[in-house]
Amino acid sequence: MRNVQQEEINILHTPISALHTDTVFSFSLIKNDPSTAGRLGKILTSHGEISTPVFMPVGTQATVKTMSPQDLTELGAEIILSNTYHLFLRPGHELIREFGGLHGFMNWQRPILTDSGGFQVFSLADLRKITDEGVTFQSHLDGGAKHVITPEAAIGIQEALGADIIMAFDECIPYPATRDYAQEALDRTLQWAERCRAAKQDRGQALFGIVQGGMYPELRKRSAEALVATGFDGYAIGGLSVGETKPLMYEMVEATVPSLPEDQPRYLMGVGTPEDLVECVDRGIDMFDCVMPTRNARNGTFFTSFGRVVIRNARYERDPGPIDPECGCSTCRNFSRAYLRHLFNAGEVLALRLGTVHNLYFYLNLMREVRRNIELGTFGEFKKAFLAKRETLID
Amino acid sequence: MRNVQQEEINILHTPISALHTDTVFSFSLIKNDPSTAGRLGKILTSHGEISTPVFMPVGTQATVKTMSPQDLTELGAEIILSNTYHLFLRPGHELIREFGGLHGFMNWQRPILTDSGGFQVFSLADLRKITDEGVTFQSHLDGGAKHVITPEAAIGIQEALGADIIMAFDECIPYPATRDYAQEALDRTLQWAERCRAAKQDRGQALFGIVQGGMYPELRKRSAEALVATGFDGYAIGGLSVGETKPLMYEMVEATVPSLPEDQPRYLMGVGTPEDLVECVDRGIDMFDCVMPTRNARNGTFFTSFGRVVIRNARYERDPGPIDPECGCSTCRNFSRAYLRHLFNAGEVLALRLGTVHNLYFYLNLMREVRRNIELGTFGEFKKAFLAKRETLID
Repeated sequence: MRNVQQEEINILHTPISALHTDTVFSFSLIKNDPSTAGRLGKILTSHGEISTPVFMPVGTQATVKTMSPQDLTELGAEIILSNTYHLFLRPGHELIREFGGLHGFMNWQRPILTDSGGFQVFSLADLRKITDEGVTFQSHLDGGAKHVITPEAAIGIQEALGADIIMAFDECIPYPATRDYAQEALDRTLQWAERCRAAKQDRGQALFGIVQGGMYPELRKRSAEALVATGFDGYAIGGLSVGETKPLMYEMVEATVPSLPEDQPRYLMGVGTPEDLVECVDRGIDMFDCVMPTRNARNGTFFTSFGRVVIRNARYERDPGPIDPECGCSTCRNFSRAYLRHLFNAGEVLALRLGTVHNLYFYLNLMREVRRNIELGTFGEFKKAFLAKRETLID
Repeated sequence: MRNVQQEEINILHTPISALHTDTVFSFSLIKNDPSTAGRLGKILTSHGEISTPVFMPVGTQATVKTMSPQDLTELGAEIILSNTYHLFLRPGHELIREFGGLHGFMNWQRPILTDSGGFQVFSLADLRKITDEGVTFQSHLDGGAKHVITPEAAIGIQEALGADIIMAFDECIPYPATRDYAQEALDRTLQWAERCRAAKQDRGQALFGIVQGGMYPELRKRSAEALVATGFDGYAIGGLSVGETKPLMYEMVEATVPSLPEDQPRYLMGVGTPEDLVECVDRGIDMFDCVMPTRNARNGTFFTSFGRVVIRNARYERDPGPIDPECGCSTCRNFSRAYLRHLFNAGEVLALRLGTVHNLYFYLNLMREVRRNIELGTFGEFKKAFLAKRETLID
């Protein structure tokens, strides 16, 4: 066994840039947009490159619901996210380790990011007890068995899962929360982040810290600065999209980004709508994840260039057109609204897959457009036109 | 409007072989197996060729559950079956007609067969009232609305659905049934078959008659002879696999086949297990359909070369092997038993698709093997070895 104490000391005396010299992980900033804080970049991992800004489809239980790895590849997904909390409970991280981690288990050979389980412990588990040591909780699955997750455990689990990017264990607070509560949770999260960094042994993985601080700009700033002082491979903004208004969310992003390094990736967790993605790319975010495209698809609600299509609506009963005539996805190239509506009404499983293909294509294609416009230096105009169009949407 | 009465008279004075000279439909007998009644054939339809003996995946509601048309093409399915009763109720055959029939509606460009709705009216509908005219029933779907299906209506609906092969409307009796009841239903089915033939207007479709007669060999024979005298494009054997023993089912097939023409296809409806398929190819059957591979797949029960795999079984928890090491399907080439078990336990939709791919591959591959062995003149030996192996299966 390595001496974690010794390792920690060494790390503290090592320049940040040299922290993970033996990992493949790197971030290259390719271009800054001239009129916004938007930026084009590239993340290199041992499972391949990721062009940023990027949207990461969510594969909670080691599968992006309804999608095969081949479907995701055809959609152009460059990285997916999976949930540590769910996989810890079922099938268990030790089982997944035996399969060479998530990549081997689910047969997805491109990059993966796992969250730390923090968000789910605080949103799904029962009878939570938080101490400085970690969190004790009953799972929502296995008949209320008791589990403990410490920062060290969260790293150990994520090392077993073997994602390319792993996340520090954080305390997620509800909204609204008092400043005192937000600060207490933030302090604990910072301590946990340091423990995560010290506990991490697998040098093939990148570790991101998570900025918390509720809806308090000065706490967000302090959180970001403290994490950067500790040194991580990238920085996430957590605890947003929890019920606050859009302007407040954007304000928190703005309060955070200036304290984050230019030469490392920034990840806004659990966000969001197409508008959110464009607004936050504008504010300097590189990475996003959200269940919205996949979950909405399974409810029969589709994103289009002209607004939402709720496919069960009677107006689509005999509609021979595709979900979106401007869309190039395989669902739009092959199936009518009438057929999709029939599949949803009949409870057919194929409906969920065809809808998911469409919504993920919409999100991934939006990010391709975003990157192309940053490349061309036209992201500011793109954003203006995109948001203006969406304000006039019919739905 | 055409004069149906006149048409019927014309048909009665036309040699059977010239009945559908303007349809593309034809059956070519390529080879008879030397040691069994098995035969290799080819059916030509306006949507392509079908090599027989063939297994037809069931796509009840205009979709083979969990499969896209592309999946089916990759599996090598040459024809699928869809259910008139379900489509009549939802989304309605007139809607499907607007899309150019089922081919356009579901975007499947290969051959389709529709059943007549008879079986479902008798197995699913409530408050059935049968008269010589037709059947009045309440649907299982639309809050008990009352519907009437006559032989003429069954043909009209199937013409709207536009399948390549359509079926005469028949009365399906329960098992067991008295000889008197079986004979009464048979007589009505024969009258209905003649009315179906007279009602049929679309010459792009082939019409098959359905042999009934319960478990009474002499009724089966009489049914077959009467249908052949009327003249159809092919002949189905209905009312089997309804609870009778295997030997009794095979006996009914044996009682029927000798009365059917050598130069037309023979279709055993709703059958069956892999053993049934091999046993009934041996007895001269060319076409099969059954929900077993698709339904079992969705229950997590897989067909393999060494017996059934019930994937939720704890013994597969950490099993890195494919469902069947001898299988070449994309599921077995890409995913472990442990991963599939996890997907089933987690209630993930992808599980249903991956399982369906495997089971359909098993059935379609079995039929490829059957055809290859008839081609080689070795079907008798193949059958013996196949059945002997399956008798020793571990499950």
